[in-house]
Amino acid sequence: MGMTMTEKILAYHAGKEVVEPGELISCKVDAVLANDITGPVAISEFKKIGVDAVFDRDRVYLVPDHFTPNKDIKSAEQAKILRDFAKEQNLTYYFEVGKMGIEHVLLPEEGLVLPGEVIIGADSHTCTYGGLGAFATGVGSTDLAAAMALGETWFKVPESIKFYLYGEKLLPYVSAKDIILYIIGQIGVDGALYKAMEFAGSALKLISVEGRLTMANMAIEAGAKNGIFPVDELTLEYVKGRAKREFKVFASDPDARYEAVYEINVEEIEPQVALPHLPENAVPVKEVSGKDIDQVVIGSCTNGRIEDLRVAAAILKGKKVKDYVRCIIIPGSQSVYRQALKEGLIDIFIEAGAAVSTPTCGPCLGGHMGILAKGERAVATTNRNFVGRMGHVESEVYLAGPAVAAASAIAGKIVHPEEVL
Amino acid sequence: MGMTMTEKILAYHAGKEVVEPGELISCKVDAVLANDITGPVAISEFKKIGVDAVFDRDRVYLVPDHFTPNKDIKSAEQAKILRDFAKEQNLTYYFEVGKMGIEHVLLPEEGLVLPGEVIIGADSHTCTYGGLGAFATGVGSTDLAAAMALGETWFKVPESIKFYLYGEKLLPYVSAKDIILYIIGQIGVDGALYKAMEFAGSALKLISVEGRLTMANMAIEAGAKNGIFPVDELTLEYVKGRAKREFKVFASDPDARYEAVYEINVEEIEPQVALPHLPENAVPVKEVSGKDIDQVVIGSCTNGRIEDLRVAAAILKGKKVKDYVRCIIIPGSQSVYRQALKEGLIDIFIEAGAAVSTPTCGPCLGGHMGILAKGERAVATTNRNFVGRMGHVESEVYLAGPAVAAASAIAGKIVHPEEVL
Repeated sequence: MGMTMTEKILAYHAGKEVVEPGELISCKVDAVLANDITGPVAISEFKKIGVDAVFDRDRVYLVPDHFTPNKDIKSAEQAKILRDFAKEQNLTYYFEVGKMGIEHVLLPEEGLVLPGEVIIGADSHTCTYGGLGAFATGVGSTDLAAAMALGETWFKVPESIKFYLYGEKLLPYVSAKDIILYIIGQIGVDGALYKAMEFAGSALKLISVEGRLTMANMAIEAGAKNGIFPVDELTLEYVKGRAKREFKVFASDPDARYEAVYEINVEEIEPQVALPHLPENAVPVKEVSGKDIDQVVIGSCTNGRIEDLRVAAAILKGKKVKDYVRCIIIPGSQSVYRQALKEGLIDIFIEAGAAVSTPTCGPCLGGHMGILAKGERAVATTNRNFVGRMGHVESEVYLAGPAVAAASAIAGKIVHPEEVL
Repeated sequence: MGMTMTEKILAYHAGKEVVEPGELISCKVDAVLANDITGPVAISEFKKIGVDAVFDRDRVYLVPDHFTPNKDIKSAEQAKILRDFAKEQNLTYYFEVGKMGIEHVLLPEEGLVLPGEVIIGADSHTCTYGGLGAFATGVGSTDLAAAMALGETWFKVPESIKFYLYGEKLLPYVSAKDIILYIIGQIGVDGALYKAMEFAGSALKLISVEGRLTMANMAIEAGAKNGIFPVDELTLEYVKGRAKREFKVFASDPDARYEAVYEINVEEIEPQVALPHLPENAVPVKEVSGKDIDQVVIGSCTNGRIEDLRVAAAILKGKKVKDYVRCIIIPGSQSVYRQALKEGLIDIFIEAGAAVSTPTCGPCLGGHMGILAKGERAVATTNRNFVGRMGHVESEVYLAGPAVAAASAIAGKIVHPEEVL
């Protein structure tokens, strides 16, 4: 019997011919990452291990992105721990404020996470890199510390679920975010618990690499261990010129084992909104159209890429953000910011009355740069709408793609983009 | 005996022919302002007064700029109080995130503070508007609340000190900020306690209106009640096309009374740095050149205007911010941001590895977007370097103009701009 690409990647990194779902393996990692929340804990644990140096100074990535530029003394102290450790270990890939981005936007564009690799990060959305055909998953800070020292970690090999996407075109204003919200709406937030969500099918050609990163990013919102896409021409084109090292491509065998297979016609998916307080509460935007909002956030590791900003700019161009509504747009990296500048997107945002900030995860986790007061309601392109996620426990977050978010900023209420054009 | 322009403005607004220094007067105000720190207190006090409406809905300005986009739930709640009050009172000039700026950058450029006016604000740097020949001063939130209701307030008429500036040209890289730091260095942080600092002399032609706003802004750092500049052609050109209402120009009489007159040759002023922990610790930058830094902040109500960004961009162009150093650049308003975009300045900053944020007072007051950890050192174009002002009590702030700040970001240490060119 054949293996899925997740199983093949894990087998290869474990130095084995075959692995079985459920098997515990010890496995080399190609790179590890931490941010300004998890990094200080990992570094503290690393220092207890008693080794002098990280396993490879080119493969430990530190990205202070959650509370930067620092919002308070505590966050400044956390960022300083990363900076000091990066200097001490002479890390090649420490990314300073102003030269960086949100970790999961930055690392793919820097060619530091590649097809066929095993990547672990002390951040739940590390699964993003599955968009490039890597096995990538979030781990705790202690596991990360051990991997920083040893260059390996352990896994229980996950079972795989296949999401077979078919269809020839998407409805207007539908993006990868709508597809993943729709899927999570179908299977629920525990619909893929500790499983590999493998995306496949003829409709993948409609989904750019950036869109795949968006979808893999939210695999964790269905409880998955990882999300993963096949490596195709689009992937290879994306990594060409970016890859900082050699990589190996793995593909699922035709007779690979799947715990389940879902077939999804992407042509039927309408622009989605996930209602509070779970990502699984996805409904077509038309079902909630008209609900007043206080804030819109466009950005995050889910939708802070250049394609997302292009979509938002196409809608905001020549329009104005509604009175008393904040529209906060955060490019996912300095490189996205730079590209958006070149294309005139930042001009469009500023003209529209949006606030454009330097890259930060901030508002997504209720940490910085766009927190909600009691009773406030936001539409956000982020990945979680849990109770209190963006601020007060009595605030509400509606998850959407960049088109619905931008349109809602103009209308001052949740709308289908058609309603503002 | 004649009167100073400060006395004339106060007399006019008190409905009197003459006022004397030391006299207590009741005085009409042309406008009042509050921000997201002081506004909630003023609004709460206003509600206790028992009137339904503010004295004039066109003359109460609310600018949520200190902790916005909101950094946490508390700051979100504060901003919401302003927003709700603005809606309830139907205020014309409530400035939402994304459509605003730092109060003291925004209001002059919007033509909402004008020559000859009396402006009070619940913020100590309200004195900024003296750069346009207004009498402007900071007041407590309770006084502000009363003025919001009544359209008038009381003052003790200040004595005036004249700063007679002469000279035909400035040394390279010297800006208005260097001049005011030099002056505060000469007279000390209580050198003008409760006085009007009146600037005059042939060298004023070398100082743009934006530079005058920078200098008047720091009058409070010498303890002054207000700083004030004569209204000349440059002033009138600045307010032309911006002014939202009629205004009246006042000039000091030749025989006006001054408590003291300082004569200052601006040609002798070198680029300055004010050492921790007082603005009066100003020295020529060459005296401290070489000191390592962790952060640079370019922005604030002191130096967040387009001229400041032009100076910084001229130095940062084609250069890179030093490794491990954060350079945070915050345009003072959306309009400054827009102009900087048009001129390609934002591109230069991003290319250099600076973080560009949406307008906020944040780092200046240790509130947001660039806080220092223990032991860290910053060069900042802000106005105060008190103990713990930008973060940890064991951090240090060196005040400077935008040229020295930008050069120091490149060098990773305090330098004269000549050292990086």
